[in-house]
Amino acid sequence: MAKQKIIYDCDPGHDDAVALMLAANSPELELLGVTVAAGNQTLDNTARNACHVLQWLGREDVPVYAGCGQPMVRDRVTAGDIHGETGLDGPVFPPLRKTVEREHAVSYLSRALLASEGEITVVTSGPMTNLAMAMRMEPGVVEKIQRIVLMGGSYTNGNVTPAAEFNILADPEAAHVCFTSGRPITMIGLDVTRKVLCYPEIVERMAKADTRASRLFVDLMKHFCKTQKEVFGWEGGPLHDPVTIAFLLDPALVATKPMNVRVDLSRGDSYGRTNCDAFGYLGLPATADVAVDIDAERFWDLIEAGLRRYGGTEADA
Amino acid sequence: MAKQKIIYDCDPGHDDAVALMLAANSPELELLGVTVAAGNQTLDNTARNACHVLQWLGREDVPVYAGCGQPMVRDRVTAGDIHGETGLDGPVFPPLRKTVEREHAVSYLSRALLASEGEITVVTSGPMTNLAMAMRMEPGVVEKIQRIVLMGGSYTNGNVTPAAEFNILADPEAAHVCFTSGRPITMIGLDVTRKVLCYPEIVERMAKADTRASRLFVDLMKHFCKTQKEVFGWEGGPLHDPVTIAFLLDPALVATKPMNVRVDLSRGDSYGRTNCDAFGYLGLPATADVAVDIDAERFWDLIEAGLRRYGGTEADA
Amino acid sequence: MAKQKIIYDCDPGHDDAVALMLAANSPELELLGVTVAAGNQTLDNTARNACHVLQWLGREDVPVYAGCGQPMVRDRVTAGDIHGETGLDGPVFPPLRKTVEREHAVSYLSRALLASEGEITVVTSGPMTNLAMAMRMEPGVVEKIQRIVLMGGSYTNGNVTPAAEFNILADPEAAHVCFTSGRPITMIGLDVTRKVLCYPEIVERMAKADTRASRLFVDLMKHFCKTQKEVFGWEGGPLHDPVTIAFLLDPALVATKPMNVRVDLSRGDSYGRTNCDAFGYLGLPATADVAVDIDAERFWDLIEAGLRRYGGTEADA
Amino acid sequence: MAKQKIIYDCDPGHDDAVALMLAANSPELELLGVTVAAGNQTLDNTARNACHVLQWLGREDVPVYAGCGQPMVRDRVTAGDIHGETGLDGPVFPPLRKTVEREHAVSYLSRALLASEGEITVVTSGPMTNLAMAMRMEPGVVEKIQRIVLMGGSYTNGNVTPAAEFNILADPEAAHVCFTSGRPITMIGLDVTRKVLCYPEIVERMAKADTRASRLFVDLMKHFCKTQKEVFGWEGGPLHDPVTIAFLLDPALVATKPMNVRVDLSRGDSYGRTNCDAFGYLGLPATADVAVDIDAERFWDLIEAGLRRYGGTEADA
Repeated sequence: MAKQKIIYDCDPGHDDAVALMLAANSPELELLGVTVAAGNQTLDNTARNACHVLQWLGREDVPVYAGCGQPMVRDRVTAGDIHGETGLDGPVFPPLRKTVEREHAVSYLSRALLASEGEITVVTSGPMTNLAMAMRMEPGVVEKIQRIVLMGGSYTNGNVTPAAEFNILADPEAAHVCFTSGRPITMIGLDVTRKVLCYPEIVERMAKADTRASRLFVDLMKHFCKTQKEVFGWEGGPLHDPVTIAFLLDPALVATKPMNVRVDLSRGDSYGRTNCDAFGYLGLPATADVAVDIDAERFWDLIEAGLRRYGGTEADA
Repeated sequence: MAKQKIIYDCDPGHDDAVALMLAANSPELELLGVTVAAGNQTLDNTARNACHVLQWLGREDVPVYAGCGQPMVRDRVTAGDIHGETGLDGPVFPPLRKTVEREHAVSYLSRALLASEGEITVVTSGPMTNLAMAMRMEPGVVEKIQRIVLMGGSYTNGNVTPAAEFNILADPEAAHVCFTSGRPITMIGLDVTRKVLCYPEIVERMAKADTRASRLFVDLMKHFCKTQKEVFGWEGGPLHDPVTIAFLLDPALVATKPMNVRVDLSRGDSYGRTNCDAFGYLGLPATADVAVDIDAERFWDLIEAGLRRYGGTEADA
Repeated sequence: MAKQKIIYDCDPGHDDAVALMLAANSPELELLGVTVAAGNQTLDNTARNACHVLQWLGREDVPVYAGCGQPMVRDRVTAGDIHGETGLDGPVFPPLRKTVEREHAVSYLSRALLASEGEITVVTSGPMTNLAMAMRMEPGVVEKIQRIVLMGGSYTNGNVTPAAEFNILADPEAAHVCFTSGRPITMIGLDVTRKVLCYPEIVERMAKADTRASRLFVDLMKHFCKTQKEVFGWEGGPLHDPVTIAFLLDPALVATKPMNVRVDLSRGDSYGRTNCDAFGYLGLPATADVAVDIDAERFWDLIEAGLRRYGGTEADA
Repeated sequence: MAKQKIIYDCDPGHDDAVALMLAANSPELELLGVTVAAGNQTLDNTARNACHVLQWLGREDVPVYAGCGQPMVRDRVTAGDIHGETGLDGPVFPPLRKTVEREHAVSYLSRALLASEGEITVVTSGPMTNLAMAMRMEPGVVEKIQRIVLMGGSYTNGNVTPAAEFNILADPEAAHVCFTSGRPITMIGLDVTRKVLCYPEIVERMAKADTRASRLFVDLMKHFCKTQKEVFGWEGGPLHDPVTIAFLLDPALVATKPMNVRVDLSRGDSYGRTNCDAFGYLGLPATADVAVDIDAERFWDLIEAGLRRYGGTEADA
């Protein structure tokens, strides 16, 4: 069976890094490229982090493209309190050999998608700036997207303001462009990602895999869970971003419901909220499949299997 | 021990009617007056319904004041799909003897509160128009309010739009006035009232009380649960409004958390949302106690006890 | 010929005081009552100022009703920079004998209008809070209003923000209620009132009338023109509010055009702007007659005639 | 003296075409390239129109780059009622030889500006989409812009809605990006362009020049003035866009005032309004030089001189 081709657009970030582990080594997926935007940290940081992770995982062949260093319209927001100064505080990486491509992420997305036959899924787990910019620069891109799977939003409440989730609030206008593109879109929001909290016992379980990937996982999670506890009071950090990739590996993992989704662009208190019409109050057509539940046990099994697929306990990058 | 004095501002409505049953016959409460606004139905309907219910319960002595027939600023919204053409479809009431007072509800609220020593709690379970209008007409009213306990809002999602709950959306500006009044305010939103769904077995249980009140309860709930199922797909209707009164009878019934609450006034997609800062993201002072959980068993016990307190199985009003 | 009955709702204020002079002594008008709101200054100040002016003019018989001390929904704004600490800095008034009525301005407006046969014009030259509150408390008031003539708004630019004029910005929600009431409404905005600047030579001309009214006019204008120059850089202050009364005395004074008018309620940068569709871009029905030009010479003649009608050069109140 | 280098970003459009005439043949200017966006008409139309005009003028050597076919975020708006189905209805052009470059306008803007030493002025007379996209894709572009001179906005009222002018309303988010870029920016809005109405006597005057350019001018204006009259009721169409180029030729032509300018992004009634703080109400730093007056006589002289510089009465392209 043909592998599912994906481009992964992210802003690593601890949970993005775990998603990369899964994406870079799954028999079901072909990771064509990684594009990064500013988000959890500045563009320099997120680009460097993507390279560090891929090098560590032995996937230096996957090209990394740096994209937009700021949102389409609004002022910049970062999340230094969660991800630290580098955006990936915690692990100590070896010196970086892998370099970022010269092509801009927006150009790469346009080029790759225009050259495709509609077989590429774009996964985003950061602000949706790069994808939205590509759609607006080259409208022909839109119909070539097989589908969009994103981590972002919430149909209940947010994690940066009472109304808004970080990835959407960091660029609400870009999210609006993507949600109104007319392409199939699956939104995996806080409503389900907050059900996969990485408790200490999960970290211990993954440590036993004892692969290069699992050791990175452990180092990442130690930092991530600490700051999540400081900010939200939880014992375990929600592993937001990997749910996107896990969902591609096993669509039954996540229950979804078609809903009309509108991003709040009001610039008032609810700016960046994803208003998801779960009950069909508005009588508008559904525009996205919104994740409503997740099989947490199955999720951790997929993560563990992913970590174990990496061998090389002796020879880390 | 002194009874807690309350003025109950409502828009009956099926669940308001149940709240009235509880409020009109609890040893712990002194129901000074009932004020009504347009909301679930037009002002004529809600005023007449309040009279019908009080007469049925043998509390014709409690005065009913009709207030504002429309929201402070926005256009009118009603909820005919849930509460029917009369606002209280279902029961057949005897001819109405009880009449509405001539004084306007806003004047009554001002007069009663200004004459008080700060011992009156105002309970609202409809749009907050009357209370907000009183505050704006007579600013001296504000400091005389002991506290406000309201059914309305949600810190997750709404029941009229994805963002907003009916009572708040029906008059967001009035809610804003109340939430920014500086008085103690307890918000009982959908987040907890959706945990007290009146399933058929609950209706059967209450039927056994066999009092004038329980028979009215049964007639009301049959209609209410039917329309709730049609609109939301639930087997039982959420008994929103009575939670306010039950909470006054037993404050331990509902867990609350102090939060900063801001009503969305943007007139965009999130208009009328109560943005409740459960995690303190915004660093703003808490302005309300927001209900976060409810002991559903205890709630039904309180309802049943309330219904049973009414005797007179043979001689209904 | 029957006199035109008016209720004058204002927030004196220097230019309101001049409007009062005209309204209190014109053979064509019957001034039924004066209602005041907070606006140019706090309610205490505006109520006292109205009494001072009427007493000075020998019209202590005209009742003054104090109304709302704050806007319907938004936070309070005042204009101390223009009108000074008392709201009427400049003149020295004799001790105040005249007192404010006990009835609330909103109640008075409701009572007077409900008792009328539709023959009363309501003139407002401050925030429209009192009138809007009366409309919302007693919807029956609306159809009894003959018409509304207001000083406020602008179809070009504002005088408090680039978008908004003071009277509207001080209570945009109240203005919205009035503009959507369906009653005939004439909006006299900055676009014309900025054409009647009270230059020093105008003050000199009026001084020659040498009546109690003209002497008050001179004292008021000296302060008003000074602060207008400080704030706007103009040699003469625009005599905004009297244009409403002058227009009633001589409708040909002001050219108007029917336009669709919508008050910006967005709470963004344009909050409180009166969007007047002069060219019919929106294809919506006209909702107000908007003043587009004024015969400035004729205006000053009317002011002078008004001031001269007051005799009593020797015995000022 | 060195010529002023400019890139002209437009959406021709009748008045853009006149601006092109001036830009393509002025000894003071070096027209490096023309970029087009959708605006007055679709991208295909505006690109073709730019080529037609340059070919007609004998400036096929100036490259034309097609850019964004839709606004950054909002839905598309066009102005078919003014500019007709082609966007340049009226003249009959010879068969088109000149072709659009393959490079995207956004890429060209980035490339040209990044390669510059800060000596290029970007003139825009359409929606500011291309320039804003370039700034967001390549933030390094921003500091290389010498200055921005734009036709757009208004500090009084709009020409598409009561609040907004077409070029800004067609992409308010792009305008916001440009106005907040920190680069020197001169806004030439309706407030001055409505003072250069192209009355029939102006058309006659220009006809006498009898050059290839003047003949095109006449054909363009006949259509433009007709539709302007239908829509606005004016005898002459305002020659909006050429004021930008004329201002570069003679900066004394236009009086400007530094103001703080904020684009309304509220999506309410005032969406797209340029709130220009002419009086400094807001106490915010000035962010743009806003045109407040124009020497109309001098403007027509510049236009006539421009048209006359084109010879070749016998051999039109």
